[in-house]
Amino acid sequence: MHPMSEGLKIFKIGGGIIDDDAQLQRFLRELARVPGRKLLVHGGGKGASQMLRDLGQEPQMVQGRRITDAATLNIVTMFYAGKTNKQVVAGLQAAGVNALGLSGADGNAIRAVRRPVRDIDYGFVGDLPADAVNVPLLRQLLETGLLPVFCAITHDGTGQLLNTNADTIASVLACALAPHYAVELHYCFEKDGVLRDVDDDASVIPQITAAEYQHLKAAGIIAAGMVPKLDNAFAALEAGVERVVIEHALRINEPVKTVLCRS
Amino acid sequence: MHPMSEGLKIFKIGGGIIDDDAQLQRFLRELARVPGRKLLVHGGGKGASQMLRDLGQEPQMVQGRRITDAATLNIVTMFYAGKTNKQVVAGLQAAGVNALGLSGADGNAIRAVRRPVRDIDYGFVGDLPADAVNVPLLRQLLETGLLPVFCAITHDGTGQLLNTNADTIASVLACALAPHYAVELHYCFEKDGVLRDVDDDASVIPQITAAEYQHLKAAGIIAAGMVPKLDNAFAALEAGVERVVIEHALRINEPVKTVLCRS
Repeated sequence: MHPMSEGLKIFKIGGGIIDDDAQLQRFLRELARVPGRKLLVHGGGKGASQMLRDLGQEPQMVQGRRITDAATLNIVTMFYAGKTNKQVVAGLQAAGVNALGLSGADGNAIRAVRRPVRDIDYGFVGDLPADAVNVPLLRQLLETGLLPVFCAITHDGTGQLLNTNADTIASVLACALAPHYAVELHYCFEKDGVLRDVDDDASVIPQITAAEYQHLKAAGIIAAGMVPKLDNAFAALEAGVERVVIEHALRINEPVKTVLCRS
Repeated sequence: MHPMSEGLKIFKIGGGIIDDDAQLQRFLRELARVPGRKLLVHGGGKGASQMLRDLGQEPQMVQGRRITDAATLNIVTMFYAGKTNKQVVAGLQAAGVNALGLSGADGNAIRAVRRPVRDIDYGFVGDLPADAVNVPLLRQLLETGLLPVFCAITHDGTGQLLNTNADTIASVLACALAPHYAVELHYCFEKDGVLRDVDDDASVIPQITAAEYQHLKAAGIIAAGMVPKLDNAFAALEAGVERVVIEHALRINEPVKTVLCRS
């Protein structure tokens, strides 16, 4: 479908690193050193919840799940699409990378569907259909040498913004772009990779194939919290993504990491 | 320099309309009806000041001028680049227009210089040098059929975001793009145009040339508050902008307006 030279690395960073500006800037400088086409998706961080509380609005929870009511959507849009996205873009510009920040509304880059109400009304939360991604726009931006930086806010096409899971955005982008690039999807977090022993940070498993993953999961070796993430990752590999990498956000240019691959 | 058919209309809207969501949506639907290439610059609105007060931070003033300290920059970035910019983009998408929101940091679209400290330290405020605008990026976005939507946040290239006057952004964009398009710069506000009598909304002056402006100004007919805006507008005309239009934000598709032109 594509020559292997046409690579694209999609990085996803989460809350922990976003809450620590010095670490975030270190990550951005590391990202600047990664060669080739790149795309970044960032999650939220604790700032939005703190600001909701500072404004006297307790985060709404139903059955232990966070609800995005109108006030929450307002604040998370300000935090994710405003503060965090522009800090990341300005930091990448300072590192010599021509980054361009996007929500799903911008250029109709990602069109979501508000999550239907079944047992719980999650509020203004977006789910992503298979055709959510505006592939021609992203190819155009990438081929111009821009690094698209997505926050986890999308829209539904009728003017409604929607809070959307950043892991899902990264994986849907990876799958949508897989027919056009050899896509590597990098989930960056606070560990060096998938650990064989959750209490031993040095027990990183260097590579896991789909078949090995089934064994590790059946044997209970992969921790419960990792399972939804890895299920998702292997689904992305099935859908055409070349490889998924689980790695430490501050050591993306170092060899220690877990590489997930089809076989 | 360009065939007249290659037009570009740059619209600037200010705080009044941004604070009223119903009016903002009406403006966006009117903007969707304007044919041809378009670009939008939006100012702030009162929301950011209100949120600063809600968070217990009084806006900092020195000699009657607003100071953008770090806390204020944080909030205005969230409001302008987050909330307002994404609401505007999502509203235009709903009206069938492929809008894409930008701060000056995105794609290095507008690079500013922090205002030097003389009598007053304005804080994180950006001034725009003549070469501030990334013209190739904007041409590429416009030629793809996108409508760029700028908030009044820029960057300095070293990772610092800067609060920047929206009128100035609109005029600097107009001048930078004037060699490539027949640019019309539209300042939209709450009146139908420049009034001969400030107390009579029906006294709109339909057209003012540079020579007529000097007479009107000397005769004291043009109100004091309008003078800096119009001085700026005529400077843009001198710099190659085809025409500057002063009009009501909700009546951009109606004939009543003031057109400023060189001669």
